[in-house]
Amino acid sequence: MSLPKLEVCISPLLFNLHQVKHKNVVVIDVLRATSTICAALSNGAASVIPVTTIEECLALKTTENIIACEREGKIADGFEHGNSPLEYSPAIIKDKSLVLTTTNGTRCINMSKGADLIITGSFLNLSAVTAFLAKSNKDTILFCSGWKDQFSLEDTLFAGAVIDQLQDKFNFNNDSSFAAWQLYQSAKDDLLNYVKNSSHYQRLAGYGIEKDIAFCVNIDTYSIVPYLNSTNQLTILH
Amino acid sequence: MSLPKLEVCISPLLFNLHQVKHKNVVVIDVLRATSTICAALSNGAASVIPVTTIEECLALKTTENIIACEREGKIADGFEHGNSPLEYSPAIIKDKSLVLTTTNGTRCINMSKGADLIITGSFLNLSAVTAFLAKSNKDTILFCSGWKDQFSLEDTLFAGAVIDQLQDKFNFNNDSSFAAWQLYQSAKDDLLNYVKNSSHYQRLAGYGIEKDIAFCVNIDTYSIVPYLNSTNQLTILH
Repeated sequence: MSLPKLEVCISPLLFNLHQVKHKNVVVIDVLRATSTICAALSNGAASVIPVTTIEECLALKTTENIIACEREGKIADGFEHGNSPLEYSPAIIKDKSLVLTTTNGTRCINMSKGADLIITGSFLNLSAVTAFLAKSNKDTILFCSGWKDQFSLEDTLFAGAVIDQLQDKFNFNNDSSFAAWQLYQSAKDDLLNYVKNSSHYQRLAGYGIEKDIAFCVNIDTYSIVPYLNSTNQLTILH
Repeated sequence: MSLPKLEVCISPLLFNLHQVKHKNVVVIDVLRATSTICAALSNGAASVIPVTTIEECLALKTTENIIACEREGKIADGFEHGNSPLEYSPAIIKDKSLVLTTTNGTRCINMSKGADLIITGSFLNLSAVTAFLAKSNKDTILFCSGWKDQFSLEDTLFAGAVIDQLQDKFNFNNDSSFAAWQLYQSAKDDLLNYVKNSSHYQRLAGYGIEKDIAFCVNIDTYSIVPYLNSTNQLTILH
C-alpha cells in the first residue's frame, strides 16, 4: 500500500503550485496566529472566526464576540485585542468567539478553501496535529504562512517537526519537505535560541513580546486540533 | 561602516519580493544550467547566449554557434546538444558561442535584468564567485532557479555555501539566508550524498546522468565568473 503524500508549501506565493482538492491542509503561523487560535480554543472559546479585513472584523463586534486585529506585529489602532496567545485566558475568552484578523495566518486559512479539511498547527499542539494526520492517512499540505509572502524560519521548523513525527507514515519526497526536516534536526535541541535567529523574532522582539515567542515554542501545551467548520469558524475537531 | 546586504531568493515566484536595482544578482541553477555555462566558458567558449524559447535558439544556429536545448531534464527533440557540463569539452566549444535554453536557469537570467550586474554561480566556481562578491562589496541577491518555480535543495545549498564564505563580509539577516546557510552546514561534509536526497537528483538519475550530478557538486574546478554583458551574452568577467 502506498503512503499518502506530504508536501510543504513554504510561502503563500507558492501555494498555487499545490492542489488542495482531496487533501488535508495544515495552516501554520507559529508567530502567532495559529498559536493564538490554539490557545483561545483550548481556553474555552466557542470558536475563532478568521477574517481578512479590519472592516469584516469590526462588523462582527457583539457581546458574544471579541474582536482582535493584528497588523505589522502589533495591535491595530482602535482595537483592544491582538494576536497574542497569552491574551486569551479562560476569564477573557470562555464561551466567546474570537474574531481574528492577522497579517499572514488568517489569509492562508482563507486561501486553503477547497481542501477536504483545513486545520491549524503550532508547536503548542504539535502531537495532536500529527496524531490526527496519521489517523486521517490522507495526502496533506503543510502550509507555512511566512511573513508577507517571504519564507519564514519558524513556520518551516514546525513543518519539519511534523515530518519528524510522521516520517514512517507519509511519503515526503520533495525538496521543501526534506529541507524543513533537516532544519528541524538542527533546531530541535534548543528551539527558542534557534528561532531567535529568525527575522520575525527580531521584528517582534522590538515590540517587547519576547514572552509570546517563548510561549509559542513550547511543544504540546495543548492537545486540541482546531479545524475550519462549515460555517467558516474554527472549532475543536472531535 | 555597515555591511552590504545579502538576500536569498528561493524561487522565481518570490523574485518580485526583491529589488534588483543597484545590486548584483547571482543566478544559480546547479543542476545544470549554471554549471554548464561555467564549464563551457572555462573550456574556451567565446560566449554563452541564454535564450528562453526553442524558436530563439533555432534562429541563432550558425557555424560559429552551437545550439543547445534542454527541456524536462533531457535534450529536446531535434537538438544534438543539451544541458550537460560534460558535453562541452574544448574540442567541441573552443571559440564557439553556445546558444542555450533550459527549463529553469536561462529564464532566471532574463528575469534578473535591471540589476547592476548579473553573474552565474555553481559549485564549480564557488570561490571565484565569492571572491568577486567580496571585492564588489555591494548588496547582492542569490537567485535560486529551482525546478518549475519550486524550491530546490541543490540551489539553496549553493546559496548556503556562498554565505558560509562571506559571513563576515555581508549582512544576511533574513530567514531564507539563515536557512540556506544551516542546510549547507548539514550537507557540506558529503555534498553528493546529501544532494541525492533532492527530487531533482531523482528526476535526473532516471535519465542516466548521475555522472553529470557528481561533476556538478565538485567545488572550485574552475576559477572564472560568467557575467551577462551588454550584448546579452555571458562571457568571463575580468
